[in-house]
Amino acid sequence: MIWQRNELTEMLNIAYPIFQAPMAGGITTPELISETSNCGGLGNLGAGYMNPEEIKEAIKQIRSLTAKPFGVNLFIPNEREVHFDEKELTAMTVLLNQFGKELGIEAPVSNQVKNYRTLYENQIEQVLRERVPVASFTFGIPNKEVVTELRKNRTVIVGTATNVKEAWELEESGVDIIVAQGSEAGGHRGTFHEEDSGLVGSMALIPQVADAVHTPVVAAGGIMDARGFAAAMALGAKGVQLGTAFLTCKESGAAEIYKQTLLNSTEEQTTFTKAFSGKLARGIGNRFIHEMADQMSMPFPLQNDLTASIRKKAAMLKQPEFMSLWAGQGVRMAKETTVKQLMEELLAER
Amino acid sequence: MIWQRNELTEMLNIAYPIFQAPMAGGITTPELISETSNCGGLGNLGAGYMNPEEIKEAIKQIRSLTAKPFGVNLFIPNEREVHFDEKELTAMTVLLNQFGKELGIEAPVSNQVKNYRTLYENQIEQVLRERVPVASFTFGIPNKEVVTELRKNRTVIVGTATNVKEAWELEESGVDIIVAQGSEAGGHRGTFHEEDSGLVGSMALIPQVADAVHTPVVAAGGIMDARGFAAAMALGAKGVQLGTAFLTCKESGAAEIYKQTLLNSTEEQTTFTKAFSGKLARGIGNRFIHEMADQMSMPFPLQNDLTASIRKKAAMLKQPEFMSLWAGQGVRMAKETTVKQLMEELLAER
Repeated sequence: MIWQRNELTEMLNIAYPIFQAPMAGGITTPELISETSNCGGLGNLGAGYMNPEEIKEAIKQIRSLTAKPFGVNLFIPNEREVHFDEKELTAMTVLLNQFGKELGIEAPVSNQVKNYRTLYENQIEQVLRERVPVASFTFGIPNKEVVTELRKNRTVIVGTATNVKEAWELEESGVDIIVAQGSEAGGHRGTFHEEDSGLVGSMALIPQVADAVHTPVVAAGGIMDARGFAAAMALGAKGVQLGTAFLTCKESGAAEIYKQTLLNSTEEQTTFTKAFSGKLARGIGNRFIHEMADQMSMPFPLQNDLTASIRKKAAMLKQPEFMSLWAGQGVRMAKETTVKQLMEELLAER
Repeated sequence: MIWQRNELTEMLNIAYPIFQAPMAGGITTPELISETSNCGGLGNLGAGYMNPEEIKEAIKQIRSLTAKPFGVNLFIPNEREVHFDEKELTAMTVLLNQFGKELGIEAPVSNQVKNYRTLYENQIEQVLRERVPVASFTFGIPNKEVVTELRKNRTVIVGTATNVKEAWELEESGVDIIVAQGSEAGGHRGTFHEEDSGLVGSMALIPQVADAVHTPVVAAGGIMDARGFAAAMALGAKGVQLGTAFLTCKESGAAEIYKQTLLNSTEEQTTFTKAFSGKLARGIGNRFIHEMADQMSMPFPLQNDLTASIRKKAAMLKQPEFMSLWAGQGVRMAKETTVKQLMEELLAER
């Protein structure tokens, strides 16, 4: 069996090299995470948008539900502070308020700009305080001090690469595991080089990254079942990370209308957009993406804050045309399932 | 061994389910094709741009070099005749003549428009006359009459799909084999629906197409070695088709400077462009692609004819910045090799 214990499962002390992707925005409930870990995989908290108190509470709940290892994922802020033109911000809020109005949102879209660098520093502090088993990072490389502090805690460090050069930089920084994210993947591209350089399909990305680094590689992007698992391992990965397949699990925090949309969507309906967050991400095409296609978005994560009320109200109204329906290109294989059933399917012999 | 005889090898009477991709434009020499077939795979002639006399001569040469099955690939013309504005054609020739001048081309770029529908009909007639073992098609579906005539000749018919709906339409038309082309693939997208609908990565595309049709599926896109072969088979393919890996073989007709460029290129250097042919294709980014990025191209294959003299002269001058350097995202794995060595590598145990 190709999913037998290997260096990755040894390092993490898990039974099967299967990660539930750290999908931010309330998807990765303590139930989803703990059930994945209890089934022998690695559950991951998508904490990129959470404040330290929320992270603390989520970890407390996860620990009440499992004694197994789990991970927490953070977004590395861009070196530069979020940089934008005040006029552009005003224009964007005017534009978004039109959508807001249609959805019956009375208050105008907030244009308060957070200090994202400080948020990240506070998140890291919380993660260090909690001595989590695994810390993973997206959109960049944790700096030397963070790596050193995590090491002291014996926290396993996971980075995200979308091309070989990013993988080299992550290996040099001292991460323990590299998630290689193929262009099939749903949600945000983890790319921290030029965006165009990070759109490599899994079939090409995995072997090239595996050839380039000594660090164990976890494959992400398009993997939905035992076939994808076997294929990723054949290509040189030591494990797999699945997002879309976990989204439609009973335990996921995705809104019911989001789950139903995924269950009725097909591979060619996913598209890339920056309209929701300011950073390139793959999701099911809808009216918001279509109507925002010609607009410049504000930088990430400011655009995400600006569209938050619209997405929230749309979900409340069960109106998928204005929700961020992140999904990978394997979406036609998505099933209404549970974490346990999904894990069994992934481990099925063929 | 996963490459043992299966329904695909039975149908084609070949030893291994490995296709050399039918790369048009002089790449697929009789030597490349015959050597692939002699090694137990299926060599394929990229005849999309060839006139009937050239096809006849190539087949004669292939048959003098092998008694094994081989294939001939044609491009299905768009339903509508090539439709364009005379003013746009003039503007494009003016634009291209600037590049031509830089390369020292004296005569202006030709703007004679061929009748592509008639060319295709003449190509088909030639293919039928030759009773070739395998006929494959890109950019569309052969019509009922063509399918019927090929059947009478016992020619195996291969179609190209880039999403599930295209695969369904091909199956309905009666093709015997479907090549599922993932977005990693080099050269032209085979898509005949909306172009955006055909950019699905292999990891997601192969299992979804395999689930959707009964016709055997051949995986293309990002496959470069035994790992990719094994992965594609795990995902549900019955065979694989490789382009980029065959390009750098001694037997390929690619210009030496093209081969050298491929051997020194990396996965993130490939990009999509319509600048060379009018249809979306993946190749190594260069000055021509960059400088033409904001221009509307003429329809395929008119744009291809318009850029022909530039590409030809650039190749003569060993000037890759103006050549169409088609390549897949697995290009970092390309090796200076021979067909025999490549076939051995593909069949190597791991």
